[in-house]
Amino acid sequence: MEDIQFWISIIATIAFAVTGVLAIADRGVDLFGVLVLGVITAIGGGTIRDIILGVPSFWSQAPLYVWLALAASMATFIAESFFTQPQIYRSMLYLDGLGAALFGIQGAFKAWQLDFGLPVAPVILGVVTAIGGGLLRDVLAGRKTLLMSHELYAIPVTLGCCLYILALNFLPEYRLESAVLCMLAIFGLRAAAIHWNLSVPKAFITKTR
Amino acid sequence: MEDIQFWISIIATIAFAVTGVLAIADRGVDLFGVLVLGVITAIGGGTIRDIILGVPSFWSQAPLYVWLALAASMATFIAESFFTQPQIYRSMLYLDGLGAALFGIQGAFKAWQLDFGLPVAPVILGVVTAIGGGLLRDVLAGRKTLLMSHELYAIPVTLGCCLYILALNFLPEYRLESAVLCMLAIFGLRAAAIHWNLSVPKAFITKTR
Amino acid sequence: MEDIQFWISIIATIAFAVTGVLAIADRGVDLFGVLVLGVITAIGGGTIRDIILGVPSFWSQAPLYVWLALAASMATFIAESFFTQPQIYRSMLYLDGLGAALFGIQGAFKAWQLDFGLPVAPVILGVVTAIGGGLLRDVLAGRKTLLMSHELYAIPVTLGCCLYILALNFLPEYRLESAVLCMLAIFGLRAAAIHWNLSVPKAFITKTR
Repeated sequence: MEDIQFWISIIATIAFAVTGVLAIADRGVDLFGVLVLGVITAIGGGTIRDIILGVPSFWSQAPLYVWLALAASMATFIAESFFTQPQIYRSMLYLDGLGAALFGIQGAFKAWQLDFGLPVAPVILGVVTAIGGGLLRDVLAGRKTLLMSHELYAIPVTLGCCLYILALNFLPEYRLESAVLCMLAIFGLRAAAIHWNLSVPKAFITKTR
Repeated sequence: MEDIQFWISIIATIAFAVTGVLAIADRGVDLFGVLVLGVITAIGGGTIRDIILGVPSFWSQAPLYVWLALAASMATFIAESFFTQPQIYRSMLYLDGLGAALFGIQGAFKAWQLDFGLPVAPVILGVVTAIGGGLLRDVLAGRKTLLMSHELYAIPVTLGCCLYILALNFLPEYRLESAVLCMLAIFGLRAAAIHWNLSVPKAFITKTR
Repeated sequence: MEDIQFWISIIATIAFAVTGVLAIADRGVDLFGVLVLGVITAIGGGTIRDIILGVPSFWSQAPLYVWLALAASMATFIAESFFTQPQIYRSMLYLDGLGAALFGIQGAFKAWQLDFGLPVAPVILGVVTAIGGGLLRDVLAGRKTLLMSHELYAIPVTLGCCLYILALNFLPEYRLESAVLCMLAIFGLRAAAIHWNLSVPKAFITKTR
């Protein structure tokens, strides 16, 4: 199980860096900006989570994630035309969704383990882990953030983390099973949103004036 | 006294979430964005303060504030047309000013108690507590921040916190009285700015080129 | 040596505040905004570094830096026309480059001393110390950040910090000499970029679409 988690988080880090770079590549960013924004997308959410939790940033103990994010960002810079092929790009989106699912559940679990502001804070920190890096990237790149788009990205993560915290409270003996199920639920919803191009229905959006 | 402080911070949290949501509602934000940005407006400033102070985020020990901010943001989403009525909106602005006064003085006191970088840091952290959440919201929502408007919002807070730190140093036996007076001073200035629609005079603004 | 470092960081703080204010003065900022953004430019990078390192913000133990940044920002507000004279402004740019060199090396050393995520994290934190304040300022002021410009600013810092960490690892007995040399290398590259108006070559910039 540990092993699976490790491999998913490796894949997730790479996918976050690649999609992070692709999201800003059309703005004429130099290689330094690409590396910084790719790394921020990949490890920024976990960093904010660890700062709020008051624990050392996870990448200070596992620099591997920084190297992976750097390598993936560099590769995306060099082989941009490869990654922007519709099929490759779509695969990256699915991997990114898998990453968001893992990072969300991991983040919620880390806060829950530290007994941090139960029950609401673990959900918040799960969401922060999954979307914080992308928010930082968009703010630094001058892009509209996820919060102002109507993408179905953070909502599946939030629902999955809520479910997971409920499960940890009421069915602690199924900790592992519920982690896997909640991750699958997040990924399933996100994959559906990618596949059918779904976004938040108008009824749930404030009117522009 | 503790009781009064508790009730004011409840009112302040609600007012911050409501005005926070109203500030961005005209941009077509979905319910998820509304909840996140409302909560960030209400608890973001205190969170940044606690991170800089190196103490656990206040809401990890008092999740009530998160729930209040969530409920107030949700209510604002549902009943937007109620809250945008001129009279209701104006009342919310006054409550928000009361909140800024309380949060500023509370933040300065927390830093002072921890003996953190006296005398200048407590003033900075008081101001951060009062305006940090709004700054985060505006950056994430792509709005011009308070620092670039010429509103009389942060200036009363800064003056009040300066006065308060002076009082804590020179008249420590009147700690309570000076807290109340400084809060009233901040609120009075802010209320005057709302009532007479005052903003920073031109002489104190750099020339645009 | 300690003494030289102290005086350079005083000069650097002042230069960062002055260039920080000049960068946003043309947008019509009020005195409060000027002071806040000047201080953030000068001490923001070190603050983010200290938060990630999990140590108290350097200015809580040395409030002098806040006072200096406040005074320099105020002076820039009052005497803007003095500082915008081409020759004075150019000198400030060179001092700012010296500051970035010192802050970068100082930041990398602080992380290295704390054994924080060697070898990659000290480089990241050196860069954060040097450019973090400017990034915060630009985000709060609604300006394009350094990461989206093609300036040769962060790249010299990054190269210098990489070299310095290599030197600390392989030639620990020359710690002092390598710090000085790496600072000079950063400053030399930055000065060359200012003098010849160099920026990142097109080959290293993604194509805009």
